[in-house]
Amino acid sequence: MARIHYNAAQPIAAAPVTELLNRLEVEDLRDNLRGAQELLHRRELGELRALLARLHSADIAWILESLPLEERLEVWELVKADREGEILLELSDAVRESLIARMDADELVAATESLEADEIADLAPDLPDEVIEEVVRALPRDERAQLRAAMSYPEGSVGALMDFDHVTVREDITLEVVTRYLRRMDELPGHTDQLFVADRARILRGVLPLARLIVSDLELDVAKVMLPEAVKLRPEDRAEDAAQLFERYDLVSAPVVDHFDHLIGRVTVDRVVDYIREKSAETQLAEAGLREEEDVFATVLDSFKNRWAWLAINLVTAFIASRVIGSFEGSIAKLVALAALMPIVAGIGGNSGNQTITMIVRALALGQIQAPYWRKLLRREIGVALLNGVIWGGLLGVIAYVLYGSVELGGVMALAMLLTLLLAATMGVAIPYLRARFGRDPAVGSSVLITACTDSGGFFIFLGLATIFLV
Amino acid sequence: MARIHYNAAQPIAAAPVTELLNRLEVEDLRDNLRGAQELLHRRELGELRALLARLHSADIAWILESLPLEERLEVWELVKADREGEILLELSDAVRESLIARMDADELVAATESLEADEIADLAPDLPDEVIEEVVRALPRDERAQLRAAMSYPEGSVGALMDFDHVTVREDITLEVVTRYLRRMDELPGHTDQLFVADRARILRGVLPLARLIVSDLELDVAKVMLPEAVKLRPEDRAEDAAQLFERYDLVSAPVVDHFDHLIGRVTVDRVVDYIREKSAETQLAEAGLREEEDVFATVLDSFKNRWAWLAINLVTAFIASRVIGSFEGSIAKLVALAALMPIVAGIGGNSGNQTITMIVRALALGQIQAPYWRKLLRREIGVALLNGVIWGGLLGVIAYVLYGSVELGGVMALAMLLTLLLAATMGVAIPYLRARFGRDPAVGSSVLITACTDSGGFFIFLGLATIFLV
Repeated sequence: MARIHYNAAQPIAAAPVTELLNRLEVEDLRDNLRGAQELLHRRELGELRALLARLHSADIAWILESLPLEERLEVWELVKADREGEILLELSDAVRESLIARMDADELVAATESLEADEIADLAPDLPDEVIEEVVRALPRDERAQLRAAMSYPEGSVGALMDFDHVTVREDITLEVVTRYLRRMDELPGHTDQLFVADRARILRGVLPLARLIVSDLELDVAKVMLPEAVKLRPEDRAEDAAQLFERYDLVSAPVVDHFDHLIGRVTVDRVVDYIREKSAETQLAEAGLREEEDVFATVLDSFKNRWAWLAINLVTAFIASRVIGSFEGSIAKLVALAALMPIVAGIGGNSGNQTITMIVRALALGQIQAPYWRKLLRREIGVALLNGVIWGGLLGVIAYVLYGSVELGGVMALAMLLTLLLAATMGVAIPYLRARFGRDPAVGSSVLITACTDSGGFFIFLGLATIFLV
Repeated sequence: MARIHYNAAQPIAAAPVTELLNRLEVEDLRDNLRGAQELLHRRELGELRALLARLHSADIAWILESLPLEERLEVWELVKADREGEILLELSDAVRESLIARMDADELVAATESLEADEIADLAPDLPDEVIEEVVRALPRDERAQLRAAMSYPEGSVGALMDFDHVTVREDITLEVVTRYLRRMDELPGHTDQLFVADRARILRGVLPLARLIVSDLELDVAKVMLPEAVKLRPEDRAEDAAQLFERYDLVSAPVVDHFDHLIGRVTVDRVVDYIREKSAETQLAEAGLREEEDVFATVLDSFKNRWAWLAINLVTAFIASRVIGSFEGSIAKLVALAALMPIVAGIGGNSGNQTITMIVRALALGQIQAPYWRKLLRREIGVALLNGVIWGGLLGVIAYVLYGSVELGGVMALAMLLTLLLAATMGVAIPYLRARFGRDPAVGSSVLITACTDSGGFFIFLGLATIFLV
């Protein structure tokens, strides 16, 4: 497949995003990275600079993320100063930090000059205080207010996804007038699929989808053609809820209003896509005990910092489980087979508990579990655990019998497996239920909690039964 | 907050999607579910039917997902036949199956009547063969060809995300003519942010964004205003790559062409959002050992079927680890403290290995690891493992010494921890590297594989060292 680049004659920063995309196919992305690496290794920095100038900032961001630190910094040096801001926005947190840490205050202030208020707010948490102060001072008054507003919304809220770019029209003008008004603009803000209709006091009266504007009679008033109010978001709504609305109703943009229905800004689908991706990455990383997205080329010390907390928690839970075993050392000394069999019980219990809790946490996040149905769920999970317990417990009992020739040991194994699976099912329902009840996020650390329960519980049940019946 | 519904006077099936959204806020969704449940419990079925008629099909789908099977079927009975198709499309696989299993062939054929070819293709895997045959026979010739094409693309390909709805114009006409042509249509297909410019042979010549059409001089030819080709997808491209293009370039729609650049269809951002969500759910579920999305209200038997495979694999790996321990029974019998300490070593090794493999699998999926950098990565991971090993191994050694009063035992514990962490780091890099090299998906079962290595390996290292130095 031919490698085709953007038409370099088009000025990158000014062109609307779609314009940058000319002639791009999936394969080209990888070719560009390989091209950049080759030019860097052959030290053809002039050519590399020219290649970077032709690329979309998202592509440059990806190339930076795919290079080890030294090479990353070399490429970063070749990027034009007026594009640094947009590229920083596209980078993952870890890589962004690695670059910002090596830029001085003047460079950082210069990098933000091409950005809008909502974009500066996205970078703000990573910028030194003196840079932010200087940036705020340099802004025109209305953008300064927007930046303050944007910085005031917490991560995970609609306010943090919002931008201030949108076209507003009045309802008492004709589509003809709207069309002439639009034609006087050089371009519409990206992702404008609808215009917002507001009155003199900026109260949202409705929306006018472009697709509707285009097919309607130009003589008509906006009021006749507009949809009287669409999905409206509030800046304090949860971003997750907004994402669900976008997904459910296939939105491209949605207005954000305050409690008096004043139009403040809008959320667009591209930000929602980024949010969904980041959120899903976070969940995946958190489940493996990584606190945040890790730069693949981070230093040993940075990686250690990102990972130690989880290992410490793990150490505590493993220590507790170990003490449970320690308290049965007498039984193990008498029947050493117990030591070999006990990890099977705890391990399968842990997996089964994780299955239950994952399913429930996910359904909770989708809002699918209503108060009256918890009991039903618990009954179902106990049913599954009984079935699993009889089948796997029976199988393990037979295996233990075959290995060690003791019917009693086989029986204890089977019974312990059954009881551990019942414990796992109960805790798998109880943990998210209690966390949701007390207003905590049921997802956070759910896997650690259930594994801690099933490990210690499984060892206790198995060794306890063995002590009663065998020793 | 007042509960406001759609304007029921608007015919739901015919209206463009945005029109259905009037007056919706985040809270309304939960209110509607509660309302539906109350009406069902009070047996006010006429009112419930009226409520359902006012709701968007995505909302009805969500209500169905949030109800136990019997109530779900009752609500389903009240849904108008001509909306069943769109609602089935919105449902999760598991819930969709639960409803289709209870519909007869005639109902299913009727449900597909309101759907387009690409939508029928989405339902097809769940439909009985005789229903598909009948549906195909009832379609007009061109849609029949589209359905065949859509059904031929495998899940996870761009072809499976594609629809056939788009507006095509020629490049030698003026924008004035385009505008008049559009105004003769009742509405544009959903998510039309750009028109496709194609020649007589349907070869894609470029795209004309609506935002550009609206701000440009109507006297100009399409050829002057269009962008000469934009991001183009092929039906055989991976859906994941397409999702990355949409995310990277903030697209709303993209044309799909064949190898000769003939326009076949398009992909829209709403399908991409659904794909991303489903994919992330799948990963999350797979990591917990659930084969597919599970209906929270599934029967015990269905849940068991969804979960047993993973537990069986887990049983095998646990059995292997158990045999490793079994081969050291002599040492454990002499020094029973080993039994209490060994799960700590294996457990922390497993967690540490999972951290490494998750980070690498994710970076691989984002295309961030190039061939020359594997060695660098391995060196970094070994560095982190050494640091972790010295710190946690040292701490555990001290704890073992305090608990059991033996310096040798403490030393063995510390050394075993260090070696197990090194093993975990090496396997955490090697497993995804080898899988990627041999063309397999590095994500599938990565957690099972690494845990199997660290469990058996951790037990072997700890008990082996103990046997050499202590017993």
